[in-house]
Amino acid sequence: MKTKNLAMLCDFYEMTMSNGYLKNGFYKKKVYFDVFFRKVPDNGGFAIAAGLEQVIDYINNIHFDDDDIEYLKSKKIFDEQFLHYLRSFKFSGDIYAVPEGTVIFPNEPILTVCAPAIEAQLIETYVLLALNHQTLIATKANRIVRAAQGRTVLEFGSRRAHGASGAIEGARAAYIGGCKGTACTITDELYGVPADGTMAHSWVQMFDSEYDAFKTYCELYPDNPTLLVDTYNTLKSGIPNAIKVFKEVLVPMGKTEFSIRLDSGDISYLSKKARKMLDEAGLKNCKITVSNSLDEYLIRDLMMQGAQIDTFGVGERLITSASSPVFGGVYKLVAVESEDGEIVPKIKVSENTTKITNPHFKKVYRYYDNESGKAIADELCVYDEVVNDSLPRTIFDPNATWKTKTITDYTAKELLVPIFKNGKCVYNSPSISEIADYCRKQTDSLWDEVKRFENPHSYYVDLSKKLYEIKGMLLNICGM
Amino acid sequence: MKTKNLAMLCDFYEMTMSNGYLKNGFYKKKVYFDVFFRKVPDNGGFAIAAGLEQVIDYINNIHFDDDDIEYLKSKKIFDEQFLHYLRSFKFSGDIYAVPEGTVIFPNEPILTVCAPAIEAQLIETYVLLALNHQTLIATKANRIVRAAQGRTVLEFGSRRAHGASGAIEGARAAYIGGCKGTACTITDELYGVPADGTMAHSWVQMFDSEYDAFKTYCELYPDNPTLLVDTYNTLKSGIPNAIKVFKEVLVPMGKTEFSIRLDSGDISYLSKKARKMLDEAGLKNCKITVSNSLDEYLIRDLMMQGAQIDTFGVGERLITSASSPVFGGVYKLVAVESEDGEIVPKIKVSENTTKITNPHFKKVYRYYDNESGKAIADELCVYDEVVNDSLPRTIFDPNATWKTKTITDYTAKELLVPIFKNGKCVYNSPSISEIADYCRKQTDSLWDEVKRFENPHSYYVDLSKKLYEIKGMLLNICGM
Repeated sequence: MKTKNLAMLCDFYEMTMSNGYLKNGFYKKKVYFDVFFRKVPDNGGFAIAAGLEQVIDYINNIHFDDDDIEYLKSKKIFDEQFLHYLRSFKFSGDIYAVPEGTVIFPNEPILTVCAPAIEAQLIETYVLLALNHQTLIATKANRIVRAAQGRTVLEFGSRRAHGASGAIEGARAAYIGGCKGTACTITDELYGVPADGTMAHSWVQMFDSEYDAFKTYCELYPDNPTLLVDTYNTLKSGIPNAIKVFKEVLVPMGKTEFSIRLDSGDISYLSKKARKMLDEAGLKNCKITVSNSLDEYLIRDLMMQGAQIDTFGVGERLITSASSPVFGGVYKLVAVESEDGEIVPKIKVSENTTKITNPHFKKVYRYYDNESGKAIADELCVYDEVVNDSLPRTIFDPNATWKTKTITDYTAKELLVPIFKNGKCVYNSPSISEIADYCRKQTDSLWDEVKRFENPHSYYVDLSKKLYEIKGMLLNICGM
Repeated sequence: MKTKNLAMLCDFYEMTMSNGYLKNGFYKKKVYFDVFFRKVPDNGGFAIAAGLEQVIDYINNIHFDDDDIEYLKSKKIFDEQFLHYLRSFKFSGDIYAVPEGTVIFPNEPILTVCAPAIEAQLIETYVLLALNHQTLIATKANRIVRAAQGRTVLEFGSRRAHGASGAIEGARAAYIGGCKGTACTITDELYGVPADGTMAHSWVQMFDSEYDAFKTYCELYPDNPTLLVDTYNTLKSGIPNAIKVFKEVLVPMGKTEFSIRLDSGDISYLSKKARKMLDEAGLKNCKITVSNSLDEYLIRDLMMQGAQIDTFGVGERLITSASSPVFGGVYKLVAVESEDGEIVPKIKVSENTTKITNPHFKKVYRYYDNESGKAIADELCVYDEVVNDSLPRTIFDPNATWKTKTITDYTAKELLVPIFKNGKCVYNSPSISEIADYCRKQTDSLWDEVKRFENPHSYYVDLSKKLYEIKGMLLNICGM
């Protein structure tokens, strides 16, 4: 699974353009592409980068098989020279990217490819797809986890995911964003995201009675079982049967960890009723898990209403990021190398001014306030600029240049780190739990105002003076 | 890709329940599960079934590898007997399903599994995931294609899909729903969905001028090229350069098929301007393709405004079904076989009455009016009922039993067909273009009222008298 070759998962135009690049002598021309996005899903204040590990796997394994070449040949539009080139295709370029779990903002590069034109073009679709998908889900998971204010959130959505990888890597991304585990078994096996589960209604229905079903389950799994109590009637039958079985089977064994799950009805009302019934039965330690079309908005409301919930199982609205299911990362040419090795910035103009790109091979600095540890602003710089954080620095809003701010007592950190150098992976991938830890710290580095669900404060993403001037010059050339 | 084993893509509770079934002697107990859904995405009137082919591939290939067994063993909760059982696991049951491309409605089975308990339980997640995903996308594609009123619709969304299979099988489903092709190369290679493409902005930027970029492209691909005209300025530069190149390169070659693509700005305005410029230049045959966050609502509006568009390239809002990204198919136990082979119906009650299931092993009949050829109603019957369509039949609304209707001069067709018998696939899968044709005919069999985007007529899905009485009896037993 991890080594599957997805070279052919590309937009057909990447093939036709690459064939043209080869024919026109551009195949050795070094080009620079940025991945960036323009809008945070759910109108949020920031996103969580994820999916880099899958990009690395993909680049490490990319090649074209005989079947692929045959298929392309059958289209009768590709030159023999191009098909020959594909037979020995390997990625030979450089890739820089922000580590997974990093907080990211619109209009800054989150990954930069520097490679011969064909190579850079052919990887476009998969690089975008992997980053767009997992960044979307990690960002959504992070919102949901924040809404739960410290309660456990589990990812339960495989069956509603958009295909197998939607489920598998979706669960991985949800863990990066802050979920404590998943129901998806293969994501545990492949990526080490802890998988766990409760029971389905079918288990309860399979037995002659709900009581028998619960008793058998607790005898089989006495360590922290969760009983699903809504198959017949939650308050009249499910919870009373669960209490009976916990007391008959688990309490005598000295077990203190067990829970019930509510999956229908009014979760707020039922959780309070359930808490009362459990407490009165002396089972204060019994936890309550809920599921049923939850997301950050519903969880926030449940918390406000004092619902008695320990664990949220979140399914379809997390695994599809249902309220905002598109992460719009794009892949844009920002520079080309001239024959004498000069890096020439390129810009893409547009009828929509929001679609104008930030040109050039760039660095991204994030400035942290030394006193609070909080992130103050990001600054996009030209690749050869160096920020000395022992000196005060004046930054300005590129859309309102009179708005300036001089920062002092700060630490500058570069966001983009080398991932591939001359086609070789030079990045030591952290473990999945290290990534999740890092994400938690990244989120903690933001002011609360940036984390607000509705109408959050816009974090500053500025251009250096040098970059701003280059962009202006290029726009003037285009007559804008 | 087609033979990948996804046995471990299951919810962890399927493993723990199956381990329990084995221990409790249920593993040979034959059970019946239905897949059905409760709500059409986008509040539409119907959905388009898709994803069966991937279910067939999955069932044909399902097995557990040594790695999988080792992983499960490491969890220290599974019996050795169960792990041994998994080592030689195969699916041995029966599956019935509606063919891909079939129009389907809420609360009717679209797939039924009849198999020993463990087998039926372990396939739950993937079966749901494959059907939910592709049915979602086929349904959305069908809406978008209907909005385009005969204009060509192409699927362009891979880069915004939720993971690799979201892109690959999403493009397949979009074709079933009515798209004419995709940009996703691998979907063509694997499934025969025609792949094609235009060019990216990077092609235009790679050359010294837009004119050079267009000229080179047309010389390379003189058969039906599409030039992207919005890299610098659509009206001032893109379209004039395209016209120049078409006239200099293609017209002298006698070529009549070529087009331009608009990807930003106001599509309605620009398409009319473009049409005028092309016509005035004598290029009435030049077609106009548009893209940029389209869906059925925007396409409907563009059509109403008289936009001059021949082809719609639809990306993120199709491949994620953005306005309604969840297809909520569920997998519910509807019957179990007793030791003496009797099929005993089962029901799942719920606090939410909409979550109450239709019990029993069932047949679904669709009744077509012989005069108009239109579908009148579906009727869920018990598996051993036979409808004789030479006799009048009285059907009734299960939620308002006084509403009856007697139909005459109709043809009854069974929707569920055998797919697997005793673990062997007995279904001859149609080709992807046959499925797309069948889908078109299925959509044509609906009255316009059912096809309305907003507030469509609710098509009748009724229960037979026999099934209705069994359901009532089971609800009474549960005390509802």
